[in-house]
Amino acid sequence: MAKPHIVRITCADRTGLIAAITAVLYKHGLNIVVMKEYVERLTNVFFARCEFTGEADTGALINEISVVLPSGADVTISQQRKKNVVILVTKEHHCLGDLLMRHHFGELNANVQAVIGNHDTLSSFTRKFDVPFHHISHEGRTQEQFEIEIGEILQGYQPDYLVLAKFMRILSPSFVVGFENRIINIHHSFLPAFKGASPYRQAYDRGVKLIGATAHIVNNDLDEGPIITQKIIPVDHEYTLSGMIEAGHEIERNVLADALKMVFEDRVFVSANKTIIFD
Amino acid sequence: MAKPHIVRITCADRTGLIAAITAVLYKHGLNIVVMKEYVERLTNVFFARCEFTGEADTGALINEISVVLPSGADVTISQQRKKNVVILVTKEHHCLGDLLMRHHFGELNANVQAVIGNHDTLSSFTRKFDVPFHHISHEGRTQEQFEIEIGEILQGYQPDYLVLAKFMRILSPSFVVGFENRIINIHHSFLPAFKGASPYRQAYDRGVKLIGATAHIVNNDLDEGPIITQKIIPVDHEYTLSGMIEAGHEIERNVLADALKMVFEDRVFVSANKTIIFD
Amino acid sequence: MAKPHIVRITCADRTGLIAAITAVLYKHGLNIVVMKEYVERLTNVFFARCEFTGEADTGALINEISVVLPSGADVTISQQRKKNVVILVTKEHHCLGDLLMRHHFGELNANVQAVIGNHDTLSSFTRKFDVPFHHISHEGRTQEQFEIEIGEILQGYQPDYLVLAKFMRILSPSFVVGFENRIINIHHSFLPAFKGASPYRQAYDRGVKLIGATAHIVNNDLDEGPIITQKIIPVDHEYTLSGMIEAGHEIERNVLADALKMVFEDRVFVSANKTIIFD
Amino acid sequence: MAKPHIVRITCADRTGLIAAITAVLYKHGLNIVVMKEYVERLTNVFFARCEFTGEADTGALINEISVVLPSGADVTISQQRKKNVVILVTKEHHCLGDLLMRHHFGELNANVQAVIGNHDTLSSFTRKFDVPFHHISHEGRTQEQFEIEIGEILQGYQPDYLVLAKFMRILSPSFVVGFENRIINIHHSFLPAFKGASPYRQAYDRGVKLIGATAHIVNNDLDEGPIITQKIIPVDHEYTLSGMIEAGHEIERNVLADALKMVFEDRVFVSANKTIIFD
Repeated sequence: MAKPHIVRITCADRTGLIAAITAVLYKHGLNIVVMKEYVERLTNVFFARCEFTGEADTGALINEISVVLPSGADVTISQQRKKNVVILVTKEHHCLGDLLMRHHFGELNANVQAVIGNHDTLSSFTRKFDVPFHHISHEGRTQEQFEIEIGEILQGYQPDYLVLAKFMRILSPSFVVGFENRIINIHHSFLPAFKGASPYRQAYDRGVKLIGATAHIVNNDLDEGPIITQKIIPVDHEYTLSGMIEAGHEIERNVLADALKMVFEDRVFVSANKTIIFD
Repeated sequence: MAKPHIVRITCADRTGLIAAITAVLYKHGLNIVVMKEYVERLTNVFFARCEFTGEADTGALINEISVVLPSGADVTISQQRKKNVVILVTKEHHCLGDLLMRHHFGELNANVQAVIGNHDTLSSFTRKFDVPFHHISHEGRTQEQFEIEIGEILQGYQPDYLVLAKFMRILSPSFVVGFENRIINIHHSFLPAFKGASPYRQAYDRGVKLIGATAHIVNNDLDEGPIITQKIIPVDHEYTLSGMIEAGHEIERNVLADALKMVFEDRVFVSANKTIIFD
Repeated sequence: MAKPHIVRITCADRTGLIAAITAVLYKHGLNIVVMKEYVERLTNVFFARCEFTGEADTGALINEISVVLPSGADVTISQQRKKNVVILVTKEHHCLGDLLMRHHFGELNANVQAVIGNHDTLSSFTRKFDVPFHHISHEGRTQEQFEIEIGEILQGYQPDYLVLAKFMRILSPSFVVGFENRIINIHHSFLPAFKGASPYRQAYDRGVKLIGATAHIVNNDLDEGPIITQKIIPVDHEYTLSGMIEAGHEIERNVLADALKMVFEDRVFVSANKTIIFD
Repeated sequence: MAKPHIVRITCADRTGLIAAITAVLYKHGLNIVVMKEYVERLTNVFFARCEFTGEADTGALINEISVVLPSGADVTISQQRKKNVVILVTKEHHCLGDLLMRHHFGELNANVQAVIGNHDTLSSFTRKFDVPFHHISHEGRTQEQFEIEIGEILQGYQPDYLVLAKFMRILSPSFVVGFENRIINIHHSFLPAFKGASPYRQAYDRGVKLIGATAHIVNNDLDEGPIITQKIIPVDHEYTLSGMIEAGHEIERNVLADALKMVFEDRVFVSANKTIIFD
């Protein structure tokens, strides 16, 4: 059976949008499997995601839908497919291991093209899963050189998304701008608490009773990008700092996997610094 | 500002339903605030709930919508309003107290018309909140007499819903049939575990590590009605039976309140022994 | 049956403390119901809480236990009893309502002596539960006058604890110092995120996917006191600001109730800006 | 630094046990890192787990401690060490993958000696991690033959524990008795709900709003062994059966990993069909 197509629409809101959009799909004999929409009242923006089955000339369909929408509408239609992904890491294995395992068993809904590490620590582990590993040390290179070399590797893969799976280097705005809304990071705190370095140390020192993790889209403001998913687990006074870190690893990998599932299924829309997620 | 109207539709699924329904609303110049729909694949049934604003002749609108739907469609339209509710209790106060408190502060989205108890324990507490309390003892009455007298009281109130807030008597099928899908019960276990009597005792004896509560619609099979909401909390070996009961009370009232919010906002659809909830 | 006594010990750690303490209790024929202890490694401080049954001359027992501990040990023994409590409120009813309900049914493990409000909004509700309400407006008074008048009312009650149940005024250090570790506040965010004013507004603007509440002990640094309990609930893009506030109220009252249970049962120890809780 | 020793004690309760036990440890100059104890009131049984540091003649220490305890006491002392483990699987990879990953990175607190599968599906994956895989098909063998051949393989490894990581065959009482309290199973429901076959199918058909997983010790009554850990996740009407199964896999592996952590650190005591866990 053919995979469904996914229509994604962002436009100014006005009365009758759902009727107009669905009428076009109906006219073409397409069957809506699921449709979800949301109007952000403050900005008056309409967001919709629709899965349909049936034969479609997507170019023509985009045109026909665009005609019934306010000018300036953003409409995309694509058939469901595995996304191409490059993962960036440093030394910690727990998120990478989880992603490679899911990839190995065909559960990631993505094709992991390569892993890039600023340390070599995870190279042999990565290769166990028949995924290429590229080591680009940040040492002895300027930030610019470092990012240029990463860029050259990415040039060869043309990934849809970059996943920062505990990549402990900050990417510069000039790098990030080339992957707008296409870099996903896992941050080891329930943002906005404990931004910046050593969030578990900060959490430990503050004596919080829950610790968390946040998967977010990377933009130019460090730790300020649109949040996709967050989870927490309870802790108590018996937790040492290393105990918190160990417990945190469990939710980091879960939160990242949950967020990537949403992203790779084209369920995430970005509006300013927020996400709208049709799950 | 006028309260939105709520359209609820249940019918056989076919291509074009959303387009057809929204076209009718658009033709009348009505503005869809939110629309959610779901197709149950096994039965091929389409469910939809739509909130719209604008002036509507609801009778005409129901007719026009019905015309574009498969025959046998169930369509209702009503303006949002507080539901009329009678609460049935026995001796335990925690659920009733929570509901009366919310009612007192206008947060229940319902008008509590009266409380009926098979014991008198909660009468003075109920009256504190200026709500009538009727005591109908089950002792010295047959089940039939007991239910007839409850029915007579309900006759005077004509409630939309009955809420069993730890009402520890079983209602007979002949009684339940008069309130199809309109009796909400809170059961003190995560059903289907620990059906029947003394679920906390059963849970304690089994040594489970979580206990729960279930809000469900009452039908003729005891503890088998469609589930609306369930929650659990973790427990450990230090919990005594009475500790479990105490902890369970906390979630019972939360689960019941969450479920009633869904019910009173017309968000719950019933399909055989399951619920579809547009939250 | 006599209520257990509770021994609370804080002292420098050294080998043999548990043996020494329990030997004293054994010598007196007392039966340990439960004993929990914890050593904070960074500071080398030993904390213990022990419940025992049996006849005890508490003064003599404190002396005998102190003798076997390092000098400077803090030892208290008291029989379990309901704590005396005064609640401070502003206009929001959800936490107060929950506490008064529990108090009414004897479930708070505390005697609510009075409620003080800087607004009069909750006075008639409070009196429904036969609890005195004192209205001290902050308007037309200096902060000093305001706190002096509150202090005068408290003088008459001599409460063990003050509970700030959505009391929206900041208490000055000179006031707080008179109730060291005896003022419990509920803050409407998962601290340290969203300190200061309008935390739900901050959370809404940031686009977080979970919101929370924190019960903490009040010290001189606003929102920086030792945390007792925290909980969160998930939210998504469909939540309006007022929807977040409404959902938050549910956990605020739960978090405050959980924290007070721990405090009123003498389970909470404070070490710098952290709590150690023997639950 | 030497690893701590762990003392585990089970005996009849009487006054003075903690004092007596800790006095022995103190006499030997041993330092208690953490001690937790629990008295099961219904059976009057005392359970304790104590970690201490320092040089110990464990044989002599067991004797000295036993002398101060009621007769029939069960006392063990052992230095913390990685447990030897054999994992049994069928076809599903998610639990095995998680365990092998943790093992690979030294995070399992166990030495995975081998994997045994009644299907060959997971053999090449297992060998990626340099762990031997033994394929013993249940087809063409009687249950007795099947278990004898598994037993022969285990004979070569002498494991401390067997882990059933989605092993879909039932082990007979005569096999189980040889590993009393040393077989850990993951069951894919929140027991006791949905015992037996196809629990997700049962959950789907019942329309529950939460699904769960249970890690338990295997005894002769299928699905009735002492429960170690349980977790749930919420589901709604949009979940298909396969969606439930997929979501369930996430918690199955988390629940099993959490349970094994407790077991491998000697934190789990069994009392009839319940566990006491000193975490």
